[in-house]
Amino acid sequence: MKRSVDELTRQLLDSYHRVGGINHVDGKNLPPKVVVAQMTQAVLRLLFPGFFCEQVIHSAELELETTALMATVHRVLEGEINKSLEYLPPDGANESDLAPLATQITAHVLGRLPYVRDPLRADTEAAYAGDPAALSKEEVIVSYPFIEAVAVQRVAHELYLQGVALVPRLMTEWAHSRTGIDIHPGAQIGTHFFIDHGTGTVIGESSTIGDHVKMYQGVGLVARSLAGGQQLRGTKRHPTIGDRVTIYANATIVGGNTVIGSGSTIGANVFLMDSVPSNSLVVYEPRGMRLISKSRPEDVLDYQI
Amino acid sequence: MKRSVDELTRQLLDSYHRVGGINHVDGKNLPPKVVVAQMTQAVLRLLFPGFFCEQVIHSAELELETTALMATVHRVLEGEINKSLEYLPPDGANESDLAPLATQITAHVLGRLPYVRDPLRADTEAAYAGDPAALSKEEVIVSYPFIEAVAVQRVAHELYLQGVALVPRLMTEWAHSRTGIDIHPGAQIGTHFFIDHGTGTVIGESSTIGDHVKMYQGVGLVARSLAGGQQLRGTKRHPTIGDRVTIYANATIVGGNTVIGSGSTIGANVFLMDSVPSNSLVVYEPRGMRLISKSRPEDVLDYQI
Amino acid sequence: MKRSVDELTRQLLDSYHRVGGINHVDGKNLPPKVVVAQMTQAVLRLLFPGFFCEQVIHSAELELETTALMATVHRVLEGEINKSLEYLPPDGANESDLAPLATQITAHVLGRLPYVRDPLRADTEAAYAGDPAALSKEEVIVSYPFIEAVAVQRVAHELYLQGVALVPRLMTEWAHSRTGIDIHPGAQIGTHFFIDHGTGTVIGESSTIGDHVKMYQGVGLVARSLAGGQQLRGTKRHPTIGDRVTIYANATIVGGNTVIGSGSTIGANVFLMDSVPSNSLVVYEPRGMRLISKSRPEDVLDYQI
Repeated sequence: MKRSVDELTRQLLDSYHRVGGINHVDGKNLPPKVVVAQMTQAVLRLLFPGFFCEQVIHSAELELETTALMATVHRVLEGEINKSLEYLPPDGANESDLAPLATQITAHVLGRLPYVRDPLRADTEAAYAGDPAALSKEEVIVSYPFIEAVAVQRVAHELYLQGVALVPRLMTEWAHSRTGIDIHPGAQIGTHFFIDHGTGTVIGESSTIGDHVKMYQGVGLVARSLAGGQQLRGTKRHPTIGDRVTIYANATIVGGNTVIGSGSTIGANVFLMDSVPSNSLVVYEPRGMRLISKSRPEDVLDYQI
Repeated sequence: MKRSVDELTRQLLDSYHRVGGINHVDGKNLPPKVVVAQMTQAVLRLLFPGFFCEQVIHSAELELETTALMATVHRVLEGEINKSLEYLPPDGANESDLAPLATQITAHVLGRLPYVRDPLRADTEAAYAGDPAALSKEEVIVSYPFIEAVAVQRVAHELYLQGVALVPRLMTEWAHSRTGIDIHPGAQIGTHFFIDHGTGTVIGESSTIGDHVKMYQGVGLVARSLAGGQQLRGTKRHPTIGDRVTIYANATIVGGNTVIGSGSTIGANVFLMDSVPSNSLVVYEPRGMRLISKSRPEDVLDYQI
Repeated sequence: MKRSVDELTRQLLDSYHRVGGINHVDGKNLPPKVVVAQMTQAVLRLLFPGFFCEQVIHSAELELETTALMATVHRVLEGEINKSLEYLPPDGANESDLAPLATQITAHVLGRLPYVRDPLRADTEAAYAGDPAALSKEEVIVSYPFIEAVAVQRVAHELYLQGVALVPRLMTEWAHSRTGIDIHPGAQIGTHFFIDHGTGTVIGESSTIGDHVKMYQGVGLVARSLAGGQQLRGTKRHPTIGDRVTIYANATIVGGNTVIGSGSTIGANVFLMDSVPSNSLVVYEPRGMRLISKSRPEDVLDYQI
């Protein structure tokens, strides 16, 4: 086996030299997935004290435990922001600016945690009020995947606003992997947001979402056409959703100029490429569907394009 | 950094005092996600002996290993049921009733495991018989995500029937996170059930599903309207599916009065809000679709609402 | 509790004797999920050196580290292939043939890694070029779930071509669990492939996909009818996709004779059962949809079959 391993290794090393672009040797240190994952879990514990621990937290210990957790999160986040800034420095920054900038961004973002808790409380209330299957707000927090997804996104959004690369995306992709809900750190989301079930729901980078919006699994707020590729970076490519909008399962809404007016309802499986006014209801025509009795097999064979 | 951490911690502690509803300090002990996850994996090993272990189990060791595993599951489950009962006691129960009740429910639910194995064998057979990609029933058990999802749901359903809060939902959400399949503990599911691929499939709390039902990824059995919110708790809000029904990918079926008659087939991406008789085939009309040649770009630009 | 555990264990052991088919006692050793998962992560590190480590790899250490990792992967893969061959031996093989055959297949498949890196580089470039949200190719590799899914599938496909059972499927199901993307090891995929978001996307065993194909979340390349069940094994049951095809979110394409001509675009939520010529655009008719103002509630109540 030793000869085989040596030979196979040599061939692979040759490929490392030959095939560029997917190696990262002697490169800048990248934030590692696993470290960002652990840090993100600690951030969830800071946001929802006592909910993601194995033991009850008592008020007597709360200050001590929070200080220790905050110190850990601060140290790790500062280190990973530093790596991200070295990897993709802001325009005009000198190398000596980066470490102080990382410290400053870390303090700013962690200082936002108290303000992130306000919409998260509202989200929890919206989920409880809107889902008859929810027994209590505690059940929502400990067992609804969307809470994890939206809490992580709201913190990642703060990093995104500070121009930090990689770390916010690694945070939301961690949540995506666990929940099936893919919200880009760039999306702007109002309060009292709720995604029920959530698997397969995608909210693109330049989406804007109002207050009291409810979505289901498989909903996509996506870009219209990506033929422009990298040239479209930074443009508004994803829809704008008003207040009190409900979007049912597997509906796809496309494009940066698409505005869903407040109070509207988008039916399940609808594919929408243009704006609709406030208080609209968009559904497929029932007559677009065909109901066939299998007792007439000649009809059954007929449902083809 | 110390000063920064202290200041950030103080601000967050202030928010803990100010923002209620998403703190759990000095509260009742809640079943922790991670403990329920480990217990659920042990339950899978009890249901499918030898399939989820690193080594072959020999019949000589089977009794010893099963006894040890059962003792662990019994102890952990009893503890978590106890927490759930303290968190949400049954109507009229005294505090002193809860520990004996937890013991009784634990014994009842673990006593149901042998009976849960019957439909699971049938589910495995249905998956093998129905999927030409399956090489063997062993492959189905070790590699098909739906097996994990349906096995966990069938046990969680037993806890649900005993009125236990939190624990059954944490069990099915653990499976949801791993498989993308979200089956509420309340759903009633017949034998020979099979969900192929499964990512994004949602089966709501009051769904009823007959025997020999096959589903694909992205299928939703969901509630019609949730404007009623918490007032609808306990009502029949999700569809009833007859026997020998097939529901293709991304179909959404809505509402508590919706009955899909036995022997029916629901096409992919269909959105259905009303009942259909037995032996129906429901598909979108081919003429609802438009086939355009890109060599006529004026047509391409035309596909908007 | 001891009496209860003993009694519950006895009942379960009875069920092990009574209910066959879902026990694996004294059976052939099956490849365990957790071992295949760890090995698959190591394979990802071999394919993308330096990207999935906590520390930067320096060129001075590259040979040493790659040799050690290759030796581990070789040893584990050979062992698991051996189990798979014992479980499902090739036609006409003697038991004494299996160990040498496992060694030979291991060397062959690991010898393919350098060649798998070529399409993976192209996939990374396609993702970066096609997604304005991507800041860099490094971001694509470390944070896009599809990279994990397609890299694992391309290696699993090499095992599939050698007739190895179980191991390739366990590899792709590991990726499915983490990414929501379910690509069967049998699928043939061209270069410059990209799946954005990806949750719920399913690519069946006999799918054939050309070069420069882009897909979104919830896309299904699935089999037409599975009434034939196991009799259809080995037949072409899944679609053929030409070059430069884009398939938007939640589109479902069905059947082994279905060919999507090169240069075509399939709209979101489309359900397609027949072939379309090159350069086609397939969308639902806008007039299949209905836009209703909620200010006329009599219309709102009307959207039923």
